[in-house]
Amino acid sequence: MDTIQSNNYPIYFNDSITQLANFVKQGNYTKVFILTDENTGEHCLPLVQEQLGDTFDLIEVNAGEESKTIDFCIGIWKMLIDFEADRGSLLINLGGGVITDMGGFVASTYKRGIDFVQVPTTLLAQVDASVGGKTGVDVDGIKNIIGTFTQPKAVFMVADFLQTLPARQILSGLAEMLKHGLICDAAYWDELKTSDLTVPTAALVYRSVQIKNEVVIDDPHEKGIRKALNFGHTVGHAVETYSLLNDEDHLSHGEAIAIGMICEAWLSNKKIGLPDAELAEITSVLSNLYPKHHIAADCHTELYSLMQKDKKNQGGKINCTLLTHIGQYSVDNICTEDELCDSLKYYAAL
Amino acid sequence: MDTIQSNNYPIYFNDSITQLANFVKQGNYTKVFILTDENTGEHCLPLVQEQLGDTFDLIEVNAGEESKTIDFCIGIWKMLIDFEADRGSLLINLGGGVITDMGGFVASTYKRGIDFVQVPTTLLAQVDASVGGKTGVDVDGIKNIIGTFTQPKAVFMVADFLQTLPARQILSGLAEMLKHGLICDAAYWDELKTSDLTVPTAALVYRSVQIKNEVVIDDPHEKGIRKALNFGHTVGHAVETYSLLNDEDHLSHGEAIAIGMICEAWLSNKKIGLPDAELAEITSVLSNLYPKHHIAADCHTELYSLMQKDKKNQGGKINCTLLTHIGQYSVDNICTEDELCDSLKYYAAL
Ligand SMILES: NC(=O)c1ccc[n+]([C@@H]2O[C@H](COP(=O)([O-])OP(=O)(O)OC[C@H]3O[C@@H](n4cnc5c(N)ncnc54)[C@H](O)[C@@H]3O)[C@@H](O)[C@H]2O)c1
Ligand SMILES: NC(=O)c1ccc[n+]([C@@H]2O[C@H](COP(=O)([O-])OP(=O)(O)OC[C@H]3O[C@@H](n4cnc5c(N)ncnc54)[C@H](O)[C@@H]3O)[C@@H](O)[C@H]2O)c1
Ligand SMILES: [Zn+2]
Ligand SMILES: [Zn+2]
Repeated sequence: MDTIQSNNYPIYFNDSITQLANFVKQGNYTKVFILTDENTGEHCLPLVQEQLGDTFDLIEVNAGEESKTIDFCIGIWKMLIDFEADRGSLLINLGGGVITDMGGFVASTYKRGIDFVQVPTTLLAQVDASVGGKTGVDVDGIKNIIGTFTQPKAVFMVADFLQTLPARQILSGLAEMLKHGLICDAAYWDELKTSDLTVPTAALVYRSVQIKNEVVIDDPHEKGIRKALNFGHTVGHAVETYSLLNDEDHLSHGEAIAIGMICEAWLSNKKIGLPDAELAEITSVLSNLYPKHHIAADCHTELYSLMQKDKKNQGGKINCTLLTHIGQYSVDNICTEDELCDSLKYYAAL
Repeated sequence: MDTIQSNNYPIYFNDSITQLANFVKQGNYTKVFILTDENTGEHCLPLVQEQLGDTFDLIEVNAGEESKTIDFCIGIWKMLIDFEADRGSLLINLGGGVITDMGGFVASTYKRGIDFVQVPTTLLAQVDASVGGKTGVDVDGIKNIIGTFTQPKAVFMVADFLQTLPARQILSGLAEMLKHGLICDAAYWDELKTSDLTVPTAALVYRSVQIKNEVVIDDPHEKGIRKALNFGHTVGHAVETYSLLNDEDHLSHGEAIAIGMICEAWLSNKKIGLPDAELAEITSVLSNLYPKHHIAADCHTELYSLMQKDKKNQGGKINCTLLTHIGQYSVDNICTEDELCDSLKYYAAL
C-alpha cells in the first residue's frame, strides 16, 4: 500500500510506528507531547513507546465523546502551559476521533498553531476523522461547533490498533466506509457487502482513505464537492446529538450515520430518483449490520431544530447530499421539515 | 489616503463607515453581528448604526483586558448559537484590541470559521491589532496563548473614533507608532518626536499602518521578518502580564511596551552597538511621554520566567529584536537572564 499524499502531508500505511519515530527524530522538535484517552493509553501507547522511548510528555483525558468539549481543551492548554510547550513543540494525537479532533483543535490554536500529527486508533478515525484537516469540539452539546481547518503534518495508520477495538466501535467506522462506497464507488460497496467485516482488512481501510482523500483534497474548506461526504450526516448528526443528550447508552457516530443514510436514501428515492431496488438494498444491508434504534415520533420537531443548528445548513434551510444511484451523489438538495420527518418515519417503520 | 492592500483584504481610510455599509450590503450575509464593549457600544456604535440601520444583532461584553479570555469566547459562541448564526454570517468587531483580537478568534473558530471585519476604535487597534491577522485570547492569565492566524475580510479605519478615547489610551497606541519609527523609518520617528500627539493625525496613523502592513504582508505566520515588530515586546509583554496580575491600576499595553523599548534599546546598545546618543534619545523621548512605573527589584526572576513562557521564545531561550540604529532592527538576539535583569535595572534607575 503506497503512502497517500493529501494536502501537503503524507498518510502512512506501512511500518507506520517506525515512520512516526523517524518523523519525530527528523522534526527536531523542542518538546513532544502525546495526547491519549484512558483506552488508547492502555492499548496503543505501549506500541508507540517501544519506538519513541521516553522522549515525550503524556496528556491523558477521559475516554468518550463527553471529553470532546471546550472545557477539556482548556485543561489541555493549561497542561501545555505548565509543561512550557513552545511554538517548536509537536502534539501526537493517539486515539479515536475524539482525540484527533480535539487534539487537532488544541494544537491549531495553542500559541496560534503548533505542529501535530494524527495516529488514529479507531476504524472511524482511520477512515474518516484523521483525514481532511477538520478539527473541532463541542460547546453546549452542539457537536463540532468550534474548530478550525488545519492540516496535520502527517497521518500514521496502524492496522494492529484495530485488534483491541470493541465490535461496536468497528461498526461505527464501518458506516463511513459504506458511505464512501455509496457516494463514489459501487464496486467498493459491493465488496464491503460481501466481506467479513469483523475487523476490516487493511486493504479495505486503504480504499476508504483513498476515497475520502480524493474528495477533500480539492476542497479543503468544504465549499463544494466535499459536501459529498455529508451523505447520511444531516439526519445522522441530529439523531446523534439527540441521543447524546437523551439516551443513557447513546448511539455511536456510525450508528447514527447508518440511520441517517437509511433516511437520506429514502429522501433520495423520493426526491431525485434513486431506484426502488437500490433503496431496498441500502436499507437491507444497513439494517442487517446495525441494531434497530427507537426514535420516538414526538422528537421529530426537536431533531429538525437540531438540523437547523447544524453548521452545514445556512439561513435555516436544510441542505442534504443525496444519491441518484449507488456510487453517485448529488449535493444541495433542500429538504423540507415534512420530508425529513417522513424519512424518519420510514426508518421507524422498518 | 489610498486604500491599503494587505493579504487579500483592503484597509479603508476614507468614508470608512460608508464603505462598511457597502461591504455588508454587497456581502449578502445571512446574519450580521456586531461585537462591542460597553464603551464602544456607547461612543462608536451610534455612528455605525446610522449607516447600517437595524440589520444586525448586537453582542456586548464588559470593557477591558479582563474580558479577553477563553471564558468570554465561550459566552460569545453560545450567543452565536442562540442567535442561530450559520456559516454565512458576518461578525463586525467594533472596538479596541480586546474586541478585534477576541472577535477575530471567535469568528475564526465558530463553525470552523465565519467572515469577520475589523473596525478598530482605539489608536492601538488601528495602528497595530487590526492589521496582520493575529487573533488571540488569554488562558490562565497568559496573554494571547490561544489564537489563530486568520485574515479579516476588510479593515475600516475611522479617525473620528479617536476623539472620545481617553488620553491614556492614546498613549498606549502611540508606543506602537514610535516602535514603527524605531524599527523601520527614522524620518517618521523624527516626525513623531516633534508632533503634537494629543490625538495623532490621520496621516500619522496611515504611515504606521503602512509600516506594519509592509512587515506582516510577506510573513503572515511570523516565521521571519515579522519579528521586527517584537522590538520592545519581549520585556514589555512580561512587564504587562506581571502588572495585570499584580497591580490594581495596571499598565496599558503601550505603557508596558514603552518600558520594554527602553530596556531593549539598552540591550541594543550593550549587545549590538546602538550608539550611545541614540539610546539616550530613545530613553528621553519615551520617558518624557510615559509616566515612570515602579518595578520592584525582587520581581526580576518572575519577569524572566514570564519571558520564557512567551510564545515568541523557544526552548527556554529568550530571543529579542533589537536596534542597530534608529530605523534599523536586528532579529534573533539571544539575551541571558543577567542581561535582561540589567536592562530592567537601567529602566529602574532612570
Ligand atoms: N474531523 C473529522 O472529519 C471527523 C469525521 C468523523 C468523525 N469525527 C469525530 O470523531 C469522533 C468519534 O470518533 P471515534 O468513534 O473514534 O470516538 P472515540 O475517540 O471516542 O473512540 C471510541 C472509543 O474507542 C476507544 N478506543 C480508541 N482506540 C482504541 C483501540 N485501539 N482499542 C480499544 N479501544 C479504543 C476510545 O477510548 C473510545 O472509548 C466524533 O467526535 C466525531 O465528531 C470527526
Ligand atoms: N492582534 C495583534 O496583532 C495585537 C497587536 C497589539 C495589541 N493587541 C492586543 O490589543 C489589546 C489592547 O488593545 P486596546 O488598548 O485597544 O484595548 P481595549 O480594547 O481594551 O481598549 C481600551 C479601552 O478603550 C475603550 N475604548 C475603545 N474605543 C474607544 C473609543 N473610541 N472611545 C472611548 N473609549 C474607547 C475600551 O472600552 C477600553 O476600555 C491587548 O489585548 C493586546 O494583546 C493585539
Ligand atoms: Zn461521519
Ligand atoms: Zn504591541
